[in-house]
Amino acid sequence: MGESKEKTTIVLFSGELDKAIAAFIIANGAAAYDHEVTIFFTFWGLNVLRKDESIVVKKGFLEKMFGKMMPRGTEKLGLSKMNFGGMGPKMIKHVMKKHQALSLPQLIELAQEQGVKLVACTMTMDLLGLQQEELLDRIHYAGVAAYLGDAADAKVNLFI
Amino acid sequence: MGESKEKTTIVLFSGELDKAIAAFIIANGAAAYDHEVTIFFTFWGLNVLRKDESIVVKKGFLEKMFGKMMPRGTEKLGLSKMNFGGMGPKMIKHVMKKHQALSLPQLIELAQEQGVKLVACTMTMDLLGLQQEELLDRIHYAGVAAYLGDAADAKVNLFI
Amino acid sequence: MGESKEKTTIVLFSGELDKAIAAFIIANGAAAYDHEVTIFFTFWGLNVLRKDESIVVKKGFLEKMFGKMMPRGTEKLGLSKMNFGGMGPKMIKHVMKKHQALSLPQLIELAQEQGVKLVACTMTMDLLGLQQEELLDRIHYAGVAAYLGDAADAKVNLFI
Repeated sequence: MGESKEKTTIVLFSGELDKAIAAFIIANGAAAYDHEVTIFFTFWGLNVLRKDESIVVKKGFLEKMFGKMMPRGTEKLGLSKMNFGGMGPKMIKHVMKKHQALSLPQLIELAQEQGVKLVACTMTMDLLGLQQEELLDRIHYAGVAAYLGDAADAKVNLFI
Repeated sequence: MGESKEKTTIVLFSGELDKAIAAFIIANGAAAYDHEVTIFFTFWGLNVLRKDESIVVKKGFLEKMFGKMMPRGTEKLGLSKMNFGGMGPKMIKHVMKKHQALSLPQLIELAQEQGVKLVACTMTMDLLGLQQEELLDRIHYAGVAAYLGDAADAKVNLFI
Repeated sequence: MGESKEKTTIVLFSGELDKAIAAFIIANGAAAYDHEVTIFFTFWGLNVLRKDESIVVKKGFLEKMFGKMMPRGTEKLGLSKMNFGGMGPKMIKHVMKKHQALSLPQLIELAQEQGVKLVACTMTMDLLGLQQEELLDRIHYAGVAAYLGDAADAKVNLFI
């Protein structure tokens, strides 16, 4: 049954608000069309999945530095263009609210409700010292092999 | 007839000269191979489609600010690397002319002549306050659903 | 025989260490799954293929400037985020070594051993004034037409 569904995969490499919003809009659109959708979060894209609050976990020195320097969750993400030291994201959030567009946290929630599979890249988590406790709930954990398995079956594969 | 053609889609999310050139070179190449090609312009990519001149349209305050801050058309785009405050784009344009490569406006014209479908993302137009009068002629207007419909039929789908 | 293999293509447009690493990890993973893999290096992505040492070749003035301003090989690449004037790449290389992940030069070597086809975009080489003597050995040279030929047969096509 599930086998005959169209599939869509997105690698979310970038950790910027605008790119994350684009990824989730495409993912939710595809899920609404009954595609089986996977978003594979790697490198800076993992920051989209971080919880807002600071989570106490044991880490080495470099891993702690990465953890501190990288944005913690959707509220802290910058823009890929016109960031203006944080003014840009505020403006974008403001116009999205004004136009009653879903915010990024709402897009993530909708994706999870629609069954979009959110996968955190375990290799990058190791490198950046991110641990499962620091990420949102209901996230899958896998490596590039799992991504390739999904992508080889999918018609739409994007790298964002 | 048209149904049996190969299809190629490109999401142009980025509003930089070098990425726009890459998108149009791939699109024109695919069209030359008789693919049905769609470029879906969203977020900063919409700036590639803006007319050079200032168009008077009624807008809210934030939309006016976005309109002023974002580059108006191909002449104003920066580079994703080595922009050097505008020197980089000048250098690139210079070497392209020297090597008799088509400029971005010429690549856009060629794409339209070859039947490449240029689609402006209506949702982002709403958010950024861009109106049809401000964009080039012969542009299609649609949302993410239309893009997904094209992409699900295409073999080559890129996000740039 | 080779005809029935799954195919994967990656356009590497970006010349940053983190994106190059991501491209090669995906490429090597796909090759390990017995996909026929092509990476097409264009624009800034060509810098990944440059030899470390300075190669003396005849060039025009602008081409010499591009040659000097662009990073020469994997050691000189910056990061797309958190570059911090070169500290970021050092940190990333450090944690990769600590976690016994392959470095970018090792990933490139592995790709070549696995038969991943590395193709330098001849059109961009002309524009940026890069010559074959300046790039790594065992590189293929082709234009966008060759890329499109590969991509139209591939299931996974990414633009990085």
